[in-house]
Amino acid sequence: MAKLLNIGMVGHGFMGRAHSNAYLRVNQFFDVGYQPVLKAVAGRDKDSTEAFARHWGWERAETDWRRLVEASEIDAIDICSPNNTHCEIALAAAAAGKMILCEKPLAMNLDEGRRMTAAVEGSGKPNMVWFNYRRVPAISLAKQIIEEGRLGKIFHYRATYLQDWTISPKVPVGGTATWRLDKEVAGAGVSGDLSTHNIDTAIWLNGPVTRVCGMTEIFIKDRRRPDGSPARVEIDDVCTFLARFSNGSNGTFEATRYARGRKNKNSFEVNGEKGSLYFDLEDMHQLQYFAHEDPPHLQGWRTIFVTGAEHPYMANWWVPGCVIGYEHTFINALADFLKSLEKGERAWPDFRDALETQAVAEAVLESARSESWVSPGQV
Amino acid sequence: MAKLLNIGMVGHGFMGRAHSNAYLRVNQFFDVGYQPVLKAVAGRDKDSTEAFARHWGWERAETDWRRLVEASEIDAIDICSPNNTHCEIALAAAAAGKMILCEKPLAMNLDEGRRMTAAVEGSGKPNMVWFNYRRVPAISLAKQIIEEGRLGKIFHYRATYLQDWTISPKVPVGGTATWRLDKEVAGAGVSGDLSTHNIDTAIWLNGPVTRVCGMTEIFIKDRRRPDGSPARVEIDDVCTFLARFSNGSNGTFEATRYARGRKNKNSFEVNGEKGSLYFDLEDMHQLQYFAHEDPPHLQGWRTIFVTGAEHPYMANWWVPGCVIGYEHTFINALADFLKSLEKGERAWPDFRDALETQAVAEAVLESARSESWVSPGQV
Amino acid sequence: MAKLLNIGMVGHGFMGRAHSNAYLRVNQFFDVGYQPVLKAVAGRDKDSTEAFARHWGWERAETDWRRLVEASEIDAIDICSPNNTHCEIALAAAAAGKMILCEKPLAMNLDEGRRMTAAVEGSGKPNMVWFNYRRVPAISLAKQIIEEGRLGKIFHYRATYLQDWTISPKVPVGGTATWRLDKEVAGAGVSGDLSTHNIDTAIWLNGPVTRVCGMTEIFIKDRRRPDGSPARVEIDDVCTFLARFSNGSNGTFEATRYARGRKNKNSFEVNGEKGSLYFDLEDMHQLQYFAHEDPPHLQGWRTIFVTGAEHPYMANWWVPGCVIGYEHTFINALADFLKSLEKGERAWPDFRDALETQAVAEAVLESARSESWVSPGQV
Amino acid sequence: MAKLLNIGMVGHGFMGRAHSNAYLRVNQFFDVGYQPVLKAVAGRDKDSTEAFARHWGWERAETDWRRLVEASEIDAIDICSPNNTHCEIALAAAAAGKMILCEKPLAMNLDEGRRMTAAVEGSGKPNMVWFNYRRVPAISLAKQIIEEGRLGKIFHYRATYLQDWTISPKVPVGGTATWRLDKEVAGAGVSGDLSTHNIDTAIWLNGPVTRVCGMTEIFIKDRRRPDGSPARVEIDDVCTFLARFSNGSNGTFEATRYARGRKNKNSFEVNGEKGSLYFDLEDMHQLQYFAHEDPPHLQGWRTIFVTGAEHPYMANWWVPGCVIGYEHTFINALADFLKSLEKGERAWPDFRDALETQAVAEAVLESARSESWVSPGQV
Repeated sequence: MAKLLNIGMVGHGFMGRAHSNAYLRVNQFFDVGYQPVLKAVAGRDKDSTEAFARHWGWERAETDWRRLVEASEIDAIDICSPNNTHCEIALAAAAAGKMILCEKPLAMNLDEGRRMTAAVEGSGKPNMVWFNYRRVPAISLAKQIIEEGRLGKIFHYRATYLQDWTISPKVPVGGTATWRLDKEVAGAGVSGDLSTHNIDTAIWLNGPVTRVCGMTEIFIKDRRRPDGSPARVEIDDVCTFLARFSNGSNGTFEATRYARGRKNKNSFEVNGEKGSLYFDLEDMHQLQYFAHEDPPHLQGWRTIFVTGAEHPYMANWWVPGCVIGYEHTFINALADFLKSLEKGERAWPDFRDALETQAVAEAVLESARSESWVSPGQV
Repeated sequence: MAKLLNIGMVGHGFMGRAHSNAYLRVNQFFDVGYQPVLKAVAGRDKDSTEAFARHWGWERAETDWRRLVEASEIDAIDICSPNNTHCEIALAAAAAGKMILCEKPLAMNLDEGRRMTAAVEGSGKPNMVWFNYRRVPAISLAKQIIEEGRLGKIFHYRATYLQDWTISPKVPVGGTATWRLDKEVAGAGVSGDLSTHNIDTAIWLNGPVTRVCGMTEIFIKDRRRPDGSPARVEIDDVCTFLARFSNGSNGTFEATRYARGRKNKNSFEVNGEKGSLYFDLEDMHQLQYFAHEDPPHLQGWRTIFVTGAEHPYMANWWVPGCVIGYEHTFINALADFLKSLEKGERAWPDFRDALETQAVAEAVLESARSESWVSPGQV
Repeated sequence: MAKLLNIGMVGHGFMGRAHSNAYLRVNQFFDVGYQPVLKAVAGRDKDSTEAFARHWGWERAETDWRRLVEASEIDAIDICSPNNTHCEIALAAAAAGKMILCEKPLAMNLDEGRRMTAAVEGSGKPNMVWFNYRRVPAISLAKQIIEEGRLGKIFHYRATYLQDWTISPKVPVGGTATWRLDKEVAGAGVSGDLSTHNIDTAIWLNGPVTRVCGMTEIFIKDRRRPDGSPARVEIDDVCTFLARFSNGSNGTFEATRYARGRKNKNSFEVNGEKGSLYFDLEDMHQLQYFAHEDPPHLQGWRTIFVTGAEHPYMANWWVPGCVIGYEHTFINALADFLKSLEKGERAWPDFRDALETQAVAEAVLESARSESWVSPGQV
Repeated sequence: MAKLLNIGMVGHGFMGRAHSNAYLRVNQFFDVGYQPVLKAVAGRDKDSTEAFARHWGWERAETDWRRLVEASEIDAIDICSPNNTHCEIALAAAAAGKMILCEKPLAMNLDEGRRMTAAVEGSGKPNMVWFNYRRVPAISLAKQIIEEGRLGKIFHYRATYLQDWTISPKVPVGGTATWRLDKEVAGAGVSGDLSTHNIDTAIWLNGPVTRVCGMTEIFIKDRRRPDGSPARVEIDDVCTFLARFSNGSNGTFEATRYARGRKNKNSFEVNGEKGSLYFDLEDMHQLQYFAHEDPPHLQGWRTIFVTGAEHPYMANWWVPGCVIGYEHTFINALADFLKSLEKGERAWPDFRDALETQAVAEAVLESARSESWVSPGQV
């Protein structure tokens, strides 16, 4: 019989939906020792928070997240409110001895991240940051292939995260989704949003980044707020950087919301002495793999259709050949978190992992400002 | 406030999971006037049916499906037990005045199908057959593009459904999934399973089929049952046919479970005077479209990434660029069914639609036996 | 020092260009024991034939192909005039003891083909039919992979040849290229033109065809001649058929010039117990290969980029990664022909090979007319 | 009647073959006012030069390139010897009043390039540098689409040139092809070889580069010469850089010979406000185009199969659907050069264009050395 895990979730936007869905479904597909209970959700606006709670089956709604932290029956705080709220909530939750699940990016900046990490580690409680793409089956398979030694010494790592939804000057600053353009709320632009996904995956697959050299850009500097008032855009529309990894490989990273026609092109390619891998989130069920050990006349990039029972996570879902979607990455992540609780193991990626990503992202912005190579700060 | 719709589901295999999941989730993503209630599930084995009921939250489990049909509080019977049970259950449910949702294929043969259709139409109750692929957003988009007149006069329709999971002689006859190889239970082979998906989509997109000429094959005739006893395979491993449509176009159809490397290649191509479409379920989020009206030097096959808010069903899910999966086709179908209840409109595809598909499938088998062209029977 | 091989070519249309180009270039890229000499070209129109001869460096032009057959210094007759001239020229050339290279299809019908084959075999002279696609490196590689036993027992063979250039009713009957719509000149429609390419490749890769069941169509029956006079189209626009091969596999074939957006989609897929292959002439440098022997989690369709020195013909051309084009298939074929002369071996495909293809094509047309399964005639 | 253009070619390696082939074929496919005559070829080794001359039909062979420059009957000097010979030959040829066609990269460094450009411009004679990829039909089509204004304001330019042929430590320094690893002969590594192709295309399509920030790498520093003696590798194996263009767009460039599985991945993507383009030389016949002006539900990346008569250069070759290959880029380039002579127009890209590319490449190397942003030198 699964133990109950009482969840208090802060925020009920896009991520609030994705997390609620995960909590409701994980036990139907994964045999794990814990069952999440949707105990309470917090939001600033009473009506919309209550409506959200009813819709998803949260037992109660609160307008102050502190009620969740203070509630003794709540075991875990899930932070999916905007970036500028992460630090304060995490510090309070850690002080209250709660487990914490936090949306990415971890923090507004490295300093915040360090304080948050120190706090959660001080509390000794399980914690995880929702870099959900690690749990795309094809990306997990990439990790497995690398760990099996199939790529050999790595020469190159190449990542992009390309979207196109801010090209129109009419996209406002502030509001649903568009708070991501507001420096006060988001802290950073694509560097914090898209690049951190790329960096997290890169570190996971290819190890630490030792130096970066970045370039950022704001293509449209003057927009308007939802109320029509003018708004100066102060955060990066584009974040591109060169990198060196501690394993000797070279990296290139590019994130933008101005790549017309690219909707969710979160891609990476890893080139090693013995093989290569390529992934693109727009073809989420495919991993491309080139094996130099194949007979020369048969070598080629294989498209692995990652839906088999032998592929990560897929045996828990439908049958081979049937794909899962975006939302399942959260369910897979949650299942792993619950399993780690059961086994008493460290969840991953945790605050410390996310802090390492934060340090790289901050170094990139510093590098872009100073037009020089920068090493990520200590974590 | 949504009205409750009490469901009694017969069968709890692979489709039972997919349907349960749909009932639980539809109201979280679609604003429809009905809310399904998981009232009762029936299965022959008490323990496994009860375990299934607990797992998915069905209020009670029964070992005789007749209990469901007799239960006055149940509004709709969902038939997802093997093919050889569909007819009897449907007739009883119709007689009891229940709405019916039935898994595909409709029946073991055309005669059964006719009786079932007469019964449900006689009852005057809403009914639907779960040809779920109509609700793949890319296939719905194909329908929309055709209805917009973008293809013009149609010349060719070309469909395949290729899988490879029965190549090994060790695959048994009978048991989970492998009941599909047992003539007594499945009625027909790939012609009833895979081909009917192709036929249903074809009729939906391209209109009635007037004549067919088929070829079937049993590559491995001697297998074993799960208990090790020998089993003669008597149903088609392969079903291929030529077709003529009432709109004057030519068709080719091929379904097999012996296409090494193809896992779920449910594909179609439609070639018209003004444009063409191509779809492959293995790339479920893509629809390829060729428009002859584009300037000559710019003509090409476009890959439409069907994840935008302007695409069928997608506004109900996550955000543009985020894909949905196999299971969502059932949820989309259910949402449409519930909307049709709300509006008092005919649900689709209903028993009559499925009967038309059954008639084509039966004509194909007859054609393969007689080695001649055959017209589908009247429906 | 290469021996000279004096060529007399009949016809100077599209194929005349391709062949002239091959004669001029073969010795620059292949080290073979014979060097073709462009001795004489024949055409009905004096001016255009002479212009063609000057352009390509043919030593002289003739307006009667008999002059070539009669010329003692000419070693080989190359027939690339329209289909309705093949038989008479081949019979005369065989009688004159010439080697013969003949464009495909071999003949207007099987009867002609038999007489031609008997004549050339009676002469004992080397002969070849220009089914140039055998010499696409990727198709040759497919042959090699099959011969290496990598596919195992074959279940399916699936071919298409899709084009779209006759959709407009304004395409005339007769004239450059469009003589292919004229029954008097072409003999048959796509069945003779496109399908014979598919059949030749199929027999080469998968062995003899034992039975066929076809469907043909004429979508536009009334066109005009180049001079504006009405012309009834009497030959197949579309040729589709089911097939059974002597190795027990099933086949499907579809050829059409009404597949909007497909320009030269000459494709095949072979599915075997151990592996599969896929090729599409529109991606001429790629061969897709699926190997079931790969570790399960790594199985996938590999795209072999057929440009390496280890691939057929490619070491003769540029460097790995640099592609060749359509015209090189003729040069590769010619090189093989010249090598066969040098070694005293049978050239391939020869008249007998082409006759086997002709028999299948004729059986398909007969099958379409009679709406029944037909076995190809004896060859 | 075409005028004769007497060619003297220096070098007879890989490029010597490609150029000889172009001279021999251009008049068979393009109706231009000049006909090249293969007058003389120069090489250091008497035997191999003479064999080359015989093989390709050069009228004579010389062992000193000065004989070609001095020969009054020679109109144009074609330089396709290694990079360290370009400058001296070009200066001499310019002084002798010859037209010059020079292989890329123009020079060993910017200083040489400036002197060469001054000399050829001083001579007033036509000149061209063989950046052959501009004449890939799909790349020419990209240029056309951009000039038609279909992309709007450009945000991003993204280029790669990925190969994998130097991964093995056994690849020697010096010898055929491998002279590219020898600093004395090649001047620079991939930055001069692969990156210059990317830069030339980028400037052509997207305008001047104003600043760059580069990173280079030598993965294998110790190799051997063909004679087995040790050789220190002193030139870049990898050349990656960020760029800013004068039109305000951002660029990323990466060239390497260590990308396992990539054979000739010369790719670019351009993202503009209204549309985007993508090209990859491994799919040479395809250009991908995304048009934001398409109806929202129909937007997608189109794959334009660049083989139609309406596409650049293709009407000169075979028929729609039939591809050309690597070698044809040289023939297309030569045809353009000959047309420019006929019309008295400037050929392109000429020495000045190539000098601009050289300046960017040199700035990249300087930037990599100094770890800072650098502006290309004046040209």
